[in-house]
Amino acid sequence: MTNARTIFNAVGAEAVLTEQPDLRRYLTGISTSFGYVLSDKNGNTFYTDTRYLEAASAALKGTDITVKKFEAPLENLLKGYKEVAVPLSRTAYPEYKRLEALGLKIVDSEKAFTDAMSIKQPYELDLIKKACDITDKAFVDLLGKIKEGMSENKVAAELEYLMRRYGASGTSFDTIVAFGKNSSVPHHETGNSKLEFGDIILIDFGCKAGGYCSDCTRTFLFGNDGKHGEFIKAYEHVLKAHMLVKEQVTDGITGREADAIARDYLKKYGLDKFFTHSLGHGIGINVHEHPMLSPKSESVLKSGMVFSDEPGVYFEGDFGIRIEDTVTLIDGKVISLTNSDKNLTII
Amino acid sequence: MTNARTIFNAVGAEAVLTEQPDLRRYLTGISTSFGYVLSDKNGNTFYTDTRYLEAASAALKGTDITVKKFEAPLENLLKGYKEVAVPLSRTAYPEYKRLEALGLKIVDSEKAFTDAMSIKQPYELDLIKKACDITDKAFVDLLGKIKEGMSENKVAAELEYLMRRYGASGTSFDTIVAFGKNSSVPHHETGNSKLEFGDIILIDFGCKAGGYCSDCTRTFLFGNDGKHGEFIKAYEHVLKAHMLVKEQVTDGITGREADAIARDYLKKYGLDKFFTHSLGHGIGINVHEHPMLSPKSESVLKSGMVFSDEPGVYFEGDFGIRIEDTVTLIDGKVISLTNSDKNLTII
Repeated sequence: MTNARTIFNAVGAEAVLTEQPDLRRYLTGISTSFGYVLSDKNGNTFYTDTRYLEAASAALKGTDITVKKFEAPLENLLKGYKEVAVPLSRTAYPEYKRLEALGLKIVDSEKAFTDAMSIKQPYELDLIKKACDITDKAFVDLLGKIKEGMSENKVAAELEYLMRRYGASGTSFDTIVAFGKNSSVPHHETGNSKLEFGDIILIDFGCKAGGYCSDCTRTFLFGNDGKHGEFIKAYEHVLKAHMLVKEQVTDGITGREADAIARDYLKKYGLDKFFTHSLGHGIGINVHEHPMLSPKSESVLKSGMVFSDEPGVYFEGDFGIRIEDTVTLIDGKVISLTNSDKNLTII
Repeated sequence: MTNARTIFNAVGAEAVLTEQPDLRRYLTGISTSFGYVLSDKNGNTFYTDTRYLEAASAALKGTDITVKKFEAPLENLLKGYKEVAVPLSRTAYPEYKRLEALGLKIVDSEKAFTDAMSIKQPYELDLIKKACDITDKAFVDLLGKIKEGMSENKVAAELEYLMRRYGASGTSFDTIVAFGKNSSVPHHETGNSKLEFGDIILIDFGCKAGGYCSDCTRTFLFGNDGKHGEFIKAYEHVLKAHMLVKEQVTDGITGREADAIARDYLKKYGLDKFFTHSLGHGIGINVHEHPMLSPKSESVLKSGMVFSDEPGVYFEGDFGIRIEDTVTLIDGKVISLTNSDKNLTII
């Protein structure tokens, strides 16, 4: 049984219509840039165009999803229904009005998707693990390739190449490489700054394998020029905060409580005001998805979820530190899926 | 004057509120994953979070955009207005209802964005040209690196690395590398097929430079095993269709008429039924944007637009051919921005 059936059953509406690329991927298991999945009591149909018909038919042969050519307009698909479910917060206003104009009762399918997609199935966890393993291997290789005078862009190019060579189908987001004071910008745009002796290096990176993402950040030193006392002290605190989250997060606590584990620890050392973003986010087909781990999140963490643990501190114009792993909860314990060394590294 | 002011003037509403990442990039010139641009008669403000405050303030210093920290909820930004413009087809239903609940009259800003963004300004054309030059250089280098037994993934990795090394910040979409009969799938998912002597190679690729995209496809042969008579004949027809579009497209014709140039030519040789997608699409910050060049498109092509010219034919289970350049219209003439050799190449 495909996820299309699971979602149909969970939504409980007469028909479930799904257009969004990530949700479509979840239902069909394949990547397409156009199509609709329509489920009703009789089954699931994937309507797509000629660019994907051949590949989708081959991929979905023998499953409970039938592939058909989409014949515009959308109204053709919805004849005879009284009710249709769509993910409301992902449905544009004119699309909603179009469904409404057909006299359809509109139901929200979003919660069914969020609930199902946030608890990873074994095959999904395997793909995320694969992406995380690639991330780790590429990073270890990269450390041996970093040389004085390299640009941030060149380091990013090398890292992305290594991930590709280890089997990634692409990056899960634009790789961030920040040298020296660029590390104080949490989302620095990788550029042409050249690496100098004694620089802090912050790298935030991830890849995709089988459509699933990894996400990892490491901060380390390119040689020790003896001027990094403050950095080293702060690094140990961020690492401690990161590890406390791994020790204390368990089934049933909220994203807010998880975030507070790191934030409260950093507060003891006056560092919480430099921790200017959330602790983490869910990871799966999307690199940012449910659950959120933030000061306001009431999302409940559960076994099977995959999310990031990424405390960071940023001193404007000076330096920044972020330490991030992709982790999962299994039987109430946090298991790290990215595992390259987090002890302060000087290369 | 930034694009924020141009759009405000074009929309003509009391306030213009923009949240979508690509539109935000157009208004501010910088990439961010969160924020709102709000323009009214008093000026433009970019509200973002602490991850981007430092970088955005530095980038927008001295422009007509003020940077401020976003303090939720969104309602805070909209106090005192009677009317707000948002891009309707990009606004989710609940967001629309939220604005409506504030008693605001809601105006559509979409056409102002589409009109402005489809006619490239000189600085935008320069960035697209840069992305296209990188694409060309990387492809030429790649041809010298392709060897028997390489996987599609390895070829993609090499190509993406070369684009990065020539200055790309990333790819504009997942690189498609298809060997042999995989080329018959227009959107083949690059995999682990190994290159064999005599294989057709289809590569669809592009990169980003300064936030703007390139898009290019080449189809060629890895050695001539003497069995490619049908392929070579079809190749010449697709190339001729591609070139006819470049010769005949001019200011004022529609996307439908442009598409028909290629389709009508292919029809003469019975190939139109294998041309299973549209002729092309606009290219800019997004790799697919206005205008569309398709059998149903009434978009009018104008000087300053940038779009793809990509006829293709696909013989299921056998082979496919696509020849694509990123082009622009200047003074009513098509100028090709990607320029690597399109004559049938045998490496």
